[in-house]
Amino acid sequence: MKSRPADVHRVFHALGDPTRRAIMEKLSEGPISVSNLAAPLAMTLAAVVQHLQILEDSGLVVTEKVGRVRTCRIEPTGLDVAQAWIAARRHIWENRLDRLGDLLAQKDQQEPTA
Amino acid sequence: MKSRPADVHRVFHALGDPTRRAIMEKLSEGPISVSNLAAPLAMTLAAVVQHLQILEDSGLVVTEKVGRVRTCRIEPTGLDVAQAWIAARRHIWENRLDRLGDLLAQKDQQEPTA
Repeated sequence: MKSRPADVHRVFHALGDPTRRAIMEKLSEGPISVSNLAAPLAMTLAAVVQHLQILEDSGLVVTEKVGRVRTCRIEPTGLDVAQAWIAARRHIWENRLDRLGDLLAQKDQQEPTA
Repeated sequence: MKSRPADVHRVFHALGDPTRRAIMEKLSEGPISVSNLAAPLAMTLAAVVQHLQILEDSGLVVTEKVGRVRTCRIEPTGLDVAQAWIAARRHIWENRLDRLGDLLAQKDQQEPTA
């Protein structure tokens, strides 16, 4: 998956905040209404809504209003962006380690121990 | 891999900053001296060292001084912590979707279309 730098920035900025990670941890148990999500958090409903807005803008959460109840749930798109960025860092790094291993193996073959 | 909440916090706080992600992107190309890393960045060497310190404290980077040159490289431990946290969020969410699918399939069997 190819993601734009702006997406990567939004997702990691969103996940960099401990309250927003706590919201993601709660949401990974299943969809929940905004008021039930806010109840155990030591902050105003307005502050929770603001955090949800940031998570929604970065593709990590979807909220939906049915009647008077707004429900929120995890949206995997944002998690995909973060996972792809991390995997790319590991991938290039691991490829370099593999190439280093190959070079050392070649060197061993060229210079057998006496 | 089991990671402590403190590790998760440090890693996501570290990756939440665009300069530190740019450093990680550069380092995934291979080890580099701190001065070469700092050269293209529009900030003082002291500021770069401070960012590296945060990356090092969170297990994302290792620096090593040989003679007068300090070299830095990616350390996979921190990336593992971030990857495990994201995978856990996806895992629980996907399991719930699977269970929902099973429930709908059972319902279909119990109530065949007329």
